[in-house]
Amino acid sequence: MVVDGLVEEIRRKKNPCIVGIDPEWSKLPDCYKSGALSRADSVLEWATDVIEAVADIVPAVKPQMAFFEVFGAEGVRVHQQIVSRAHSKGLIVVDDSKRNDIGNTARAYAYAHLAKDGPINADFLTVSPFLGTDSMQPFIDTAAREGKGIFVLVKTSNPGSAEISEATNAQGENISRWLAGWVNSVGNTCVGECGYSSVGAVVGATFPDEARQLRSIMKNSFFLVPGYGAQGGGAADVVSCFNDDGLGALVSSSRGVLYRHLETPEYDGSRPMYTDIVRQSAIEMRDAVCGELYTAYTKMVY
Amino acid sequence: MVVDGLVEEIRRKKNPCIVGIDPEWSKLPDCYKSGALSRADSVLEWATDVIEAVADIVPAVKPQMAFFEVFGAEGVRVHQQIVSRAHSKGLIVVDDSKRNDIGNTARAYAYAHLAKDGPINADFLTVSPFLGTDSMQPFIDTAAREGKGIFVLVKTSNPGSAEISEATNAQGENISRWLAGWVNSVGNTCVGECGYSSVGAVVGATFPDEARQLRSIMKNSFFLVPGYGAQGGGAADVVSCFNDDGLGALVSSSRGVLYRHLETPEYDGSRPMYTDIVRQSAIEMRDAVCGELYTAYTKMVY
Repeated sequence: MVVDGLVEEIRRKKNPCIVGIDPEWSKLPDCYKSGALSRADSVLEWATDVIEAVADIVPAVKPQMAFFEVFGAEGVRVHQQIVSRAHSKGLIVVDDSKRNDIGNTARAYAYAHLAKDGPINADFLTVSPFLGTDSMQPFIDTAAREGKGIFVLVKTSNPGSAEISEATNAQGENISRWLAGWVNSVGNTCVGECGYSSVGAVVGATFPDEARQLRSIMKNSFFLVPGYGAQGGGAADVVSCFNDDGLGALVSSSRGVLYRHLETPEYDGSRPMYTDIVRQSAIEMRDAVCGELYTAYTKMVY
Repeated sequence: MVVDGLVEEIRRKKNPCIVGIDPEWSKLPDCYKSGALSRADSVLEWATDVIEAVADIVPAVKPQMAFFEVFGAEGVRVHQQIVSRAHSKGLIVVDDSKRNDIGNTARAYAYAHLAKDGPINADFLTVSPFLGTDSMQPFIDTAAREGKGIFVLVKTSNPGSAEISEATNAQGENISRWLAGWVNSVGNTCVGECGYSSVGAVVGATFPDEARQLRSIMKNSFFLVPGYGAQGGGAADVVSCFNDDGLGALVSSSRGVLYRHLETPEYDGSRPMYTDIVRQSAIEMRDAVCGELYTAYTKMVY
């Protein structure tokens, strides 16, 4: 099961932080925009460099599908190639596509993104819960069959996330806590040797109090924690997403790693310096988050 | 604005029913599986035939992205080609991809699916609301700029849809009715000459009482009504989604049109007979829904 591989990578690299692969064309360094390649193939070159720069530091990468769909079918082809290159470097791939639909349609999405003989073959997929638990079951089933995993959106990092996730359902339960209970309960049917389940939750770094409550409901689920850095969540804020074994959360940063060169006055425009900035940013993030975990638990967690 | 074009097509064809383009490989007639083409290109041939068969009957088609992603980048390329072929036949295209994310990521999805200079260039896109109204704003903005439209998931047709859509928010409002109010209010900023807005709602055919309530909240929004036929919603059930001008709803069927040949014992396996069954099924659906509209309003609505 891929959750066991994830825990192994986190322990081996002593790092629960991952890097998003969000190719925003206007922010990519000019050195990747030679003009000899299509935009999509330029993105492939850039992402390959990013993956090489962080492969021995982070346990996983998180390509964001929206930024590939911008380039149409070519972008989706590059997305598939990036998943494959990340795998060849031993990285786990979290496919952040926030898919969902009902019945056969949900099954089609699950196959496309998670099946080992499907076109993408990601390890984890983010899934939106709006249509209800029956709409998520095909993703659970596919993940179980393929040894893969999913992250259900439970509490996202944006200001408007409370509008629906903090509503109260017919049983008097808060939606995000009810979702957490469901994640925990279906997760209990697919727990790996590591003690964590294949069904995780997206929990934003920007709401640490809620994260603590959700952690207590989903004891053996991994949290995918976006919003680190650029969206306002800091290292201290993410501690509440972890268990005291230093596991149970993947802290993700995209802009703070990929586009740090834009805030680096001495950046010389070259590929070697760009990949060095990416690598250093990933190391800084690891050290900041692990430092907070050490402070919180007053022990080395890995 | 595309909503004006939609109303024009509905009036010209006297039909508010549309056909989903859901290529489930196992259900496609064998005559499209020659082996000389890739599966994705076989799907293109099939979809081109379906579009030709219904182009003078229906105002719009609704390709379901999940069934294209199954074929990877090639499938997404075929999806783009199908949008373009539908446009060349004068059809409106509803891109049923149920996308959403936050900030720049939502903007990327909106560009990819709706922008006139983007890869897909659909007319309408379905959008999931779970992340909150701030996550939907980039889709509204892009739709407004491009003259396109969106359909927000408000009340879907599946059994589990009530779990979240019938929860109660902090202001004591039911989520689906609160969403309806939001759709109505943002929709009022982008009303076409036809009197309908570019911001519509997905409302399942399986809950006619709820549909009636939602209709009274979203007076000038179009409803996209899935679940006709195969999912249990019949012609009488969809009447409550319409206004008494016979407008305001698009009733969608996929399996009931595309895969009727599987329930037709005399089907001879040929392409001409397949496309004839598709065409006849689309006509039957039109006549059933328009018949119910006539019964309800005791007048010709178009």
